[in-house]
Amino acid sequence: MPKQVDHELQRQSISQAALSVIAAQGLEAARLRDVAEAAGVTTGAVTHYFDGKDAMLEAALDEIVRQMIAEMDAAWDGPTQDVGAFIDSAAQFLPIDAEGLQGWRIWFAFWGRAIVDERLRAKHRAYYATFAARTDEALRAAFPGLTRATARSLADAIIAAIDGLGVRATLEPDAWPPKRQRAALRLLLDPMLTHATRGE
Amino acid sequence: MPKQVDHELQRQSISQAALSVIAAQGLEAARLRDVAEAAGVTTGAVTHYFDGKDAMLEAALDEIVRQMIAEMDAAWDGPTQDVGAFIDSAAQFLPIDAEGLQGWRIWFAFWGRAIVDERLRAKHRAYYATFAARTDEALRAAFPGLTRATARSLADAIIAAIDGLGVRATLEPDAWPPKRQRAALRLLLDPMLTHATRGE
Repeated sequence: MPKQVDHELQRQSISQAALSVIAAQGLEAARLRDVAEAAGVTTGAVTHYFDGKDAMLEAALDEIVRQMIAEMDAAWDGPTQDVGAFIDSAAQFLPIDAEGLQGWRIWFAFWGRAIVDERLRAKHRAYYATFAARTDEALRAAFPGLTRATARSLADAIIAAIDGLGVRATLEPDAWPPKRQRAALRLLLDPMLTHATRGE
Repeated sequence: MPKQVDHELQRQSISQAALSVIAAQGLEAARLRDVAEAAGVTTGAVTHYFDGKDAMLEAALDEIVRQMIAEMDAAWDGPTQDVGAFIDSAAQFLPIDAEGLQGWRIWFAFWGRAIVDERLRAKHRAYYATFAARTDEALRAAFPGLTRATARSLADAIIAAIDGLGVRATLEPDAWPPKRQRAALRLLLDPMLTHATRGE
């Protein structure tokens, strides 16, 4: 089915172009024709896949979430029993490199839109449910003595710590180099995880 | 100088109208004439104070920050030496009531814009420098044994915890009632502050 493969590849390539255009220009300024130009296709090809800005934004975010989940699967793949190593794995979701920063800029554009769009909020809920479930699983794999309820609460707290530091570092990238982001994440998560896993 | 007082009051009243319109409709859909209608003034009066959407958004955010700093001053006004009480004071900056939620929605609109606007980012840096300085002062007043460097790092971590939980709760208000937000804030901050203040 070579035709179908092309179709999916083109969709993904246009999604990646949407991601870079929105990250660079912001959602408001991003035009379908800018995405077409970045993807090297016609504007008609873009509108074939995405019928407007919201659809374009969703495609860009789907692409980011797909990458994040692949990274989560790769990072958290077994028992470590080591709080420090677990936090270092979590730190990779902070805006610590150019690609991460680009992803965070898309999240900001998405949040600004999601506050007034129930469909986007539902999508957000689904994304975060997935992140929480994966983090929860990873915690229970790393620290088998945790109860389900504790692991779930810790997963929410870890996600919040990453989001809060990500917000700050995305808007103040010069003041928040990777080292400072990692140190702040450890400051927040180390005592919590050490305390929670000590009771095992 | 009665004229000047009126001028400042009208500016503030229009800022509050901008705040409610942006929170309700999102920045993109918010029009100067909607703000005029909400404030009960002419569109000309609005444009007299704000020459466009960004200026309107900034005025709304200035209004929120003014309120937040007044709340910070009221909440953190002396030595408590009590980690739990300190965290309870911090929890008031979460989206735990209708007014707080409205404020958070403005932040989301602002972040979406600030990623592509250096002037807004500079404003964000200034706001956060103020929050960090106040939180730092409050920490050192509550726990006099903290070093300056530790208090500064803790202040950043506290702000990140609030931002991260605020992001989640603003987009999932039904799933994150005040009780859950407060519990998550305690889970993140209690071990960190207990650990940091134990060494005093």
